[in-house]
Amino acid sequence: MNKQQLVDIIRKRRTFLCVGLDTDLKKVPAHILDMPDPIFAFNKAIIDATAPYCVAYKPNLAFYECFGVAGWTAFEATVEYLRTNYPEHLIIADAKRGDIGNTSAMYARAFFEDLNVDALTVAPYMGEDSVAPFLPYKNKWVVLLALTSNKGSADFQQQTLADGEALYEKVLKTSQQWADSEQMMYVVGATKGDFFKHIREIVPHHFLLVPGVGAQGGSLAEVCRYGMTNEECGLLINSSRGIIYADSSSRFATVAGEKAHELQIEMDQLLTERGL
Amino acid sequence: MNKQQLVDIIRKRRTFLCVGLDTDLKKVPAHILDMPDPIFAFNKAIIDATAPYCVAYKPNLAFYECFGVAGWTAFEATVEYLRTNYPEHLIIADAKRGDIGNTSAMYARAFFEDLNVDALTVAPYMGEDSVAPFLPYKNKWVVLLALTSNKGSADFQQQTLADGEALYEKVLKTSQQWADSEQMMYVVGATKGDFFKHIREIVPHHFLLVPGVGAQGGSLAEVCRYGMTNEECGLLINSSRGIIYADSSSRFATVAGEKAHELQIEMDQLLTERGL
Repeated sequence: MNKQQLVDIIRKRRTFLCVGLDTDLKKVPAHILDMPDPIFAFNKAIIDATAPYCVAYKPNLAFYECFGVAGWTAFEATVEYLRTNYPEHLIIADAKRGDIGNTSAMYARAFFEDLNVDALTVAPYMGEDSVAPFLPYKNKWVVLLALTSNKGSADFQQQTLADGEALYEKVLKTSQQWADSEQMMYVVGATKGDFFKHIREIVPHHFLLVPGVGAQGGSLAEVCRYGMTNEECGLLINSSRGIIYADSSSRFATVAGEKAHELQIEMDQLLTERGL
Repeated sequence: MNKQQLVDIIRKRRTFLCVGLDTDLKKVPAHILDMPDPIFAFNKAIIDATAPYCVAYKPNLAFYECFGVAGWTAFEATVEYLRTNYPEHLIIADAKRGDIGNTSAMYARAFFEDLNVDALTVAPYMGEDSVAPFLPYKNKWVVLLALTSNKGSADFQQQTLADGEALYEKVLKTSQQWADSEQMMYVVGATKGDFFKHIREIVPHHFLLVPGVGAQGGSLAEVCRYGMTNEECGLLINSSRGIIYADSSSRFATVAGEKAHELQIEMDQLLTERGL
């Protein structure tokens, strides 16, 4: 999916919600555990209930890897189900990968060729040659970590460099020499609402993937006020726990759909205010 | 495995070699591809041939993930084979993970409980709470990326901060507040031989996992000159391509063993010079 297609879908579906499929078997309703592939069964129900209200799904690989082969089977089944039934939805594999060149090339093959997801989150610590192997794939996206929503972002990301800029600013500036806004997005955590104005000055045209709305405390309105762009929206707001674990009864999928719908209504309003 | 056990094994076996199991089906001998699980078959042959000459194995997860479920099956079989047949060898899962706290906790469960590897490489970009969930596991190790051996390490790791120190120095100093040398090692790339003296001033007692000797151009003697400690050796030198792909015929495992043996002989000498 390219940038224009993503913008068109956001305008059409009146939402820029990304649903995080952080599926934890310790948190899913008890009756799900009796099913043959409980992770996939949970995901399928969540996807069917939320698809009208979102434009993207973001499975976090940690939640699948922790079940080994069974987890990978569920992850592949989830991607295949989305590809077949919801081909207009962006699939972001949240894996935070990044390694030396020949190794990153293996990850790129895994995620962009074999699994055929649309986007992959990548950690910037190892620099250009750890990111470059992901870039030759047409209509695929690198979602580079810039400023994350956790407390630990202060340890290194917000450290000031000798030239006066913070490390995350350096990441935003340097990485723009590697790929343009057609190939790269950035992770920018929503608990840092007041950072968005400044970040938009550095990356006026890139899509930002924003975790941390809801459970982690970020405000949707504040993020949009500073982070949304007038032409393309430029935001994908991720919500995971606030949607997928909103209810733990047999009605979990229905309630997840309702929670996603509430966000979609709010997003429709925010898009309209910008003339989108 | 705790630090004293690792030191004892290094002294006993006269080696501090780590063999990187970066198993790429495009590079393995043709006859291996006809076997039922070719990745595991290759690994098993390499392990049996090299085990007398090394103290650790480091499978890089990228090379397994790129084959999806089949790759994970081979990874699990490799870990199980090592656990059963070579219980004294340290297993380092080279995954370069790191995510917000609850997600890192999932990775910790996956690697330290379910897979039961000894150590995991972790990327520091997201700070303390992304690393902390790996630390409560007794006799397990976090191997934190500090200074990597690739060209891109100049992009961020070697950037100077406002207080005059490089980012990788900040990572070394800050992370020592999170865990001591019984729980944490650092990745320090061997192509930067002249950095080792300075790094040893910052982390005098930590084990350093050193990739980049051989194929990536680092010199074993130079690394040891500046990086080895007199009491505990303090180094694990990783070699992957220089051993596992040294020969592509039916003799590949024998030749891999010979290459590992050559390094072990050199390491024995280097240990003896230090009175170890």
